[in-house]
Amino acid sequence: MTHQIKLLQNKLKQENLDGFLVTKDANIAYLSDYDSKESWLLVSQGGSFFITDFRYILEAKKNLRGIEVVKTEGSIFGCVAKLVNKLEIRRLGFESKSVSYAEFKSIKIELASDVAFISTFDFVESLRENKSQVEVSKIRKAVGINMKVLEFAKGALKPGLTEREAALRLEGFIKSRGADLAFDTIVASGPNSAMPHAPLTSRKLRLGEPVLIDIGVAFQGYRSDLTRMCFLGRIPVSFKRIYDSVLASQEAAIKNISAGKPICDIDRIARNFLNKRKLGKFFGHSLGHGVGRETHELPSISSRNKERLSSNMVFTVEPAVYLNGKFGIRIEDMVLVKKNNCEVLSGALDKSIKNWTNPSY
Amino acid sequence: MTHQIKLLQNKLKQENLDGFLVTKDANIAYLSDYDSKESWLLVSQGGSFFITDFRYILEAKKNLRGIEVVKTEGSIFGCVAKLVNKLEIRRLGFESKSVSYAEFKSIKIELASDVAFISTFDFVESLRENKSQVEVSKIRKAVGINMKVLEFAKGALKPGLTEREAALRLEGFIKSRGADLAFDTIVASGPNSAMPHAPLTSRKLRLGEPVLIDIGVAFQGYRSDLTRMCFLGRIPVSFKRIYDSVLASQEAAIKNISAGKPICDIDRIARNFLNKRKLGKFFGHSLGHGVGRETHELPSISSRNKERLSSNMVFTVEPAVYLNGKFGIRIEDMVLVKKNNCEVLSGALDKSIKNWTNPSY
Repeated sequence: MTHQIKLLQNKLKQENLDGFLVTKDANIAYLSDYDSKESWLLVSQGGSFFITDFRYILEAKKNLRGIEVVKTEGSIFGCVAKLVNKLEIRRLGFESKSVSYAEFKSIKIELASDVAFISTFDFVESLRENKSQVEVSKIRKAVGINMKVLEFAKGALKPGLTEREAALRLEGFIKSRGADLAFDTIVASGPNSAMPHAPLTSRKLRLGEPVLIDIGVAFQGYRSDLTRMCFLGRIPVSFKRIYDSVLASQEAAIKNISAGKPICDIDRIARNFLNKRKLGKFFGHSLGHGVGRETHELPSISSRNKERLSSNMVFTVEPAVYLNGKFGIRIEDMVLVKKNNCEVLSGALDKSIKNWTNPSY
Repeated sequence: MTHQIKLLQNKLKQENLDGFLVTKDANIAYLSDYDSKESWLLVSQGGSFFITDFRYILEAKKNLRGIEVVKTEGSIFGCVAKLVNKLEIRRLGFESKSVSYAEFKSIKIELASDVAFISTFDFVESLRENKSQVEVSKIRKAVGINMKVLEFAKGALKPGLTEREAALRLEGFIKSRGADLAFDTIVASGPNSAMPHAPLTSRKLRLGEPVLIDIGVAFQGYRSDLTRMCFLGRIPVSFKRIYDSVLASQEAAIKNISAGKPICDIDRIARNFLNKRKLGKFFGHSLGHGVGRETHELPSISSRNKERLSSNMVFTVEPAVYLNGKFGIRIEDMVLVKKNNCEVLSGALDKSIKNWTNPSY
């Protein structure tokens, strides 16, 4: 059995549950140390059960330790109910954000009438918020590849390439290192950079325009997410001024990160900084998000989050300014919270804005 | 407004609903002709509304025609309730497989007490089952690229390459054509091929072993899914015999496909064929699945599906034999149902088993 399942079993005791049905892939992977699909995990004090079908049985048995592999015959819902009955579970928690309404109904029908089926939120996700040393070292590996691909971008992006072609070069770099993409790559040129989640297009990179590169790496189950900007050609003063404001707002926020600080304060510091320069209204999303087994996970670094930072949280810090029809600027790094400050995991990656067509660069 | 939204509006009338909340990405894409993320679509006789947040507003407005773009302020649930109220919707359908239990609860709380919130299954999915001519031509494009990559594989796969490296070459071929992967590529060598959904490993392709390649293309919103086998070196008679059985079972099934036939019969024909050769017990999944905007969609070609085939359904036919610890064999093509027969969309792709290390091949 894994250390993580023990953490969950302890939490079940505290919350007066005697069983928990895990349906979210990332939570199953975290608890079992095994990245699976279309399978569920049932955890109780009496044991843990990985419930899967014919297609995944062989692979699951090969990879799981201390977790019994159960093959569904008929419906997965009936299989869950049988196990719940056998284990004499009377209070069964479930993940209300990762069970569809149809699944909820199907499980409820199969469960004995004296079993309470109890809706929970972020029950396993909150265990995942503070990373173990093993997890941090895996995240460092993903960040390492992510920094390398953004360094590589300097030489790989040229005027005339389409956004799609540029992304393909970057993605090839990641894949050739045995890693995968954490999410759809953004290479947004000129006015496309004003869309926070710009899709790749066949627009060509042009001289005299900025390019926003937001790219993520998935490696051995853990992820990274970084954004850098470049400029193709001489950088206009107006662009440079806003770029420097976004960068300074990011630095102000990072300087204030340490265990114990209210999360909303960190978002506010970056936002106030941009507000003072009349740029706050162009920053429409929250400052950042946790990264780990998922690209977006807890904690959410937003003005609405009243929780406090704690050690070993890992998240992005990504202030931005989006000027519709003109351009957008976003700078995104990943930090690891420490007792008295934070470590910028991507700190070695240059973030000054430069002319990438300058051969001396 | 799109033709597809008109189809849905007609179905709403038949089913006595005056509004429908679409939460599944593939259904939203089908109805709106626009591939989006993290957004919902509300359809009523009084109009259609694309509900999204700050991040996607610009792109949505640029791409949608005849559908009003609504920006969520606060929660998306409150935004839905406001629209439902404004449109005087009293019977609102929702997709019970694509709304989480948590979302269901959050919407229910926001809706006025006289609004019936009605659970539906496959409401839009069943509209998508029979493809339009435009859809078929898009699927043909994806299948075309998919056939080319499997032809390319003949020259690209060599003993000594790892499964991961081999997959990377195939994926590069697809991406360089402006297309994307429909799903995680399977390149399963030797005993790994006995896992129906084998993950990529760093196992090297070896002489004297089969390789199973299951790869899919996503192009302009539509998908394809094909599997071919190759053998590196001289093919053992025992392997060839089973390969020929799987192929013959596929051909027997395909010969019987036409509009009006019960779907379970098609599955049974392939399964009976393998049973007669004592191979049926090694074929643990259903015969196939619909393909379109999703890799897996309706119809499910299984022994449990009592529905009948109808014209313009598109699905895979993929009988298989998995011998645990030894090897697996799967052959997968895509067909288009016609009145009196079917067209094998991937029919031009050779499926005889050959020795790929033979330079004359």
